[in-house]
Amino acid sequence: MANGVQDPATDGAKRIVISVDAMGGDRGPAAVVAGLSLSLREFPDVSFLLHGNEAELARLVAQQEGLAGRVTLCHADRVVTMQDKPSQVMRNGEGTSMWSCIESVKQGAASAAVSCGNTGALMALSMIRLRRLPGINRPAIASLWPSRNPGGFNVMLDMGADVKAEADDLLQFAMMGASYARNGLRLTRPRVGLLNVGTEEHKGRAELKEAHERVAQSAEAGGFDYVGFVEGSDIPSDRVDVIVTDGFTGNIALKTGEGTAKLISDFLREEFNANLFSRLAAVFALSTLRRLQKRMDPRRANGGVFLGLNGTVVKSHGSADATGVAAAIRLAHQLAAAGFQERLAARVASAMRPGQDDSVTTPSETAVGTGGGTKE
Amino acid sequence: MANGVQDPATDGAKRIVISVDAMGGDRGPAAVVAGLSLSLREFPDVSFLLHGNEAELARLVAQQEGLAGRVTLCHADRVVTMQDKPSQVMRNGEGTSMWSCIESVKQGAASAAVSCGNTGALMALSMIRLRRLPGINRPAIASLWPSRNPGGFNVMLDMGADVKAEADDLLQFAMMGASYARNGLRLTRPRVGLLNVGTEEHKGRAELKEAHERVAQSAEAGGFDYVGFVEGSDIPSDRVDVIVTDGFTGNIALKTGEGTAKLISDFLREEFNANLFSRLAAVFALSTLRRLQKRMDPRRANGGVFLGLNGTVVKSHGSADATGVAAAIRLAHQLAAAGFQERLAARVASAMRPGQDDSVTTPSETAVGTGGGTKE
Repeated sequence: MANGVQDPATDGAKRIVISVDAMGGDRGPAAVVAGLSLSLREFPDVSFLLHGNEAELARLVAQQEGLAGRVTLCHADRVVTMQDKPSQVMRNGEGTSMWSCIESVKQGAASAAVSCGNTGALMALSMIRLRRLPGINRPAIASLWPSRNPGGFNVMLDMGADVKAEADDLLQFAMMGASYARNGLRLTRPRVGLLNVGTEEHKGRAELKEAHERVAQSAEAGGFDYVGFVEGSDIPSDRVDVIVTDGFTGNIALKTGEGTAKLISDFLREEFNANLFSRLAAVFALSTLRRLQKRMDPRRANGGVFLGLNGTVVKSHGSADATGVAAAIRLAHQLAAAGFQERLAARVASAMRPGQDDSVTTPSETAVGTGGGTKE
Repeated sequence: MANGVQDPATDGAKRIVISVDAMGGDRGPAAVVAGLSLSLREFPDVSFLLHGNEAELARLVAQQEGLAGRVTLCHADRVVTMQDKPSQVMRNGEGTSMWSCIESVKQGAASAAVSCGNTGALMALSMIRLRRLPGINRPAIASLWPSRNPGGFNVMLDMGADVKAEADDLLQFAMMGASYARNGLRLTRPRVGLLNVGTEEHKGRAELKEAHERVAQSAEAGGFDYVGFVEGSDIPSDRVDVIVTDGFTGNIALKTGEGTAKLISDFLREEFNANLFSRLAAVFALSTLRRLQKRMDPRRANGGVFLGLNGTVVKSHGSADATGVAAAIRLAHQLAAAGFQERLAARVASAMRPGQDDSVTTPSETAVGTGGGTKE
């Protein structure tokens, strides 16, 4: 580990440094700085590298009590917009706050990066600056999904890093998703399922049938339980913790779920506004409806984690407010504190070896890499 | 049109005959017969061919007032179960109530078939008995989706007839889905969208980019407006009426939407049961919550229509109760009364001609086939 970044294996009291892109979100840098302020109260051990227009950021940071001493400003002239094409940003992104934000992770100055900006551009820059972990073909974006499980969330990937995935990729997603669930959701032995149109073995596309065999064989080495095929209706269920799919399907499912939740919430509001009696009922039901709203609040699950790179990058929703930004930082903080990046790299390295599918060899029997070791 | 089946173009007063598979649903024939009873009150012009165990059905029909004179029983010894593989049923399905139900449509004794049974088996039997419309490569299943549109529903296809679709298939789905929306939702000029991971033209898989061009070129000939790519969050929106996708993605989206709605409904119930005050609030909110429930009730949207065959087949949800069965029959009745099958066949035939993509030639300028003509 390099220059001042906290290493959980050697010294838990060290500061955790998070690199934050202040620009490029729909609500501008003010929402990001307000989010930092919430996070500081929650995590006394965190400090920030904040990337963007220095003059503007200095003014915003000065307005929030207690921020000044824990935020280091990193000036960047340019901003990646939501309209920029990832291919252009790849050629042309140097000097943007997003580039600078990722660079801090690459240089070892921060343990994780957080950005509310353009997803495609953030993935493209992360790919060219951080590079893929050895052996990983396609990185993936993992998101949290409200669920019936005790922790309240399931993990799903890929949510849109790439529009396709072969059997090999799905296997890697299963390994990486399980590792994320161990470190991000604190599950000792996550249950992994492959998303399909039915739970019977003969159903689905060819690559899914192949992945079905291979994920089952790799469950022991990957430290997870494989529950087999799961369906769309199982995504929020308590029979699975990690749902594996390609980025096209994951993106459609995510937005369909969000759209359905929004439709029901709009219909609920319309019905409670329908007449005098229902408006009165709404007053009585207010605290109940607020609890429901909190449980389904997409801001609580904010943060898509890029898996499969040499560094942790958390993509916050573009329209995140202070609460949403703080949730994304909480996720980055937890992954950094758990030494997730090192553990994931070790897990992937051990899975790449000959004998990776031997269900008798447990990963803890191999000694790999840096401090974190292979035991997650 | 054959033996006694009503032809809307010549005689609207004739009976509409619907062929109904009484067996194979999760709730057994009693739920189906109760559904027929509801339908008879709604549609005085309908009569039924009811397929299954004659002794059992005779008893059930006798219990429902007014049914006896309007139901003809068709005995079938065997039943297709939910566990049967479609490939086995294809080889081996003769003598089942599902086979017999489809056969009545093939023979022209009924205008449409309705079954609550095994979806894969129903599609397989429909394919081998009714055959595809000339020029159709893949049939599709079209379902209704609760939406913000004035009619309350959007159409989406394919919901799982096949796990893949090429650009050609997606174009045919657009044509057939638009035709279904005209006849099933009574929309003069449906708006069609292609489901993708973003609305920008450069996004998505190769077959989607190709379909994007071709659907746009065929909009005029198909009598619809093309709105371009839509995302998962647009499925219930009012910017589109018909959402086109492959059967894998459609199935995942459908079940994800259902799963999300169920999760929210469960959470809502839990929160209203949380304490004495919230239970009191629930009493006040009861009529409001019932209106919401009705608006989201999946039974109201019950009925996946198989498109692209020589005959109309409506797949009811396996767990449909009397209300659900009646909704599926309502759909079959409406499509039969509109002469949908003839109109769809004519539309497909006209689209297959040279010059189909010529936006100046409107379909009404061509004279095709049976009574209904090409104008839907």
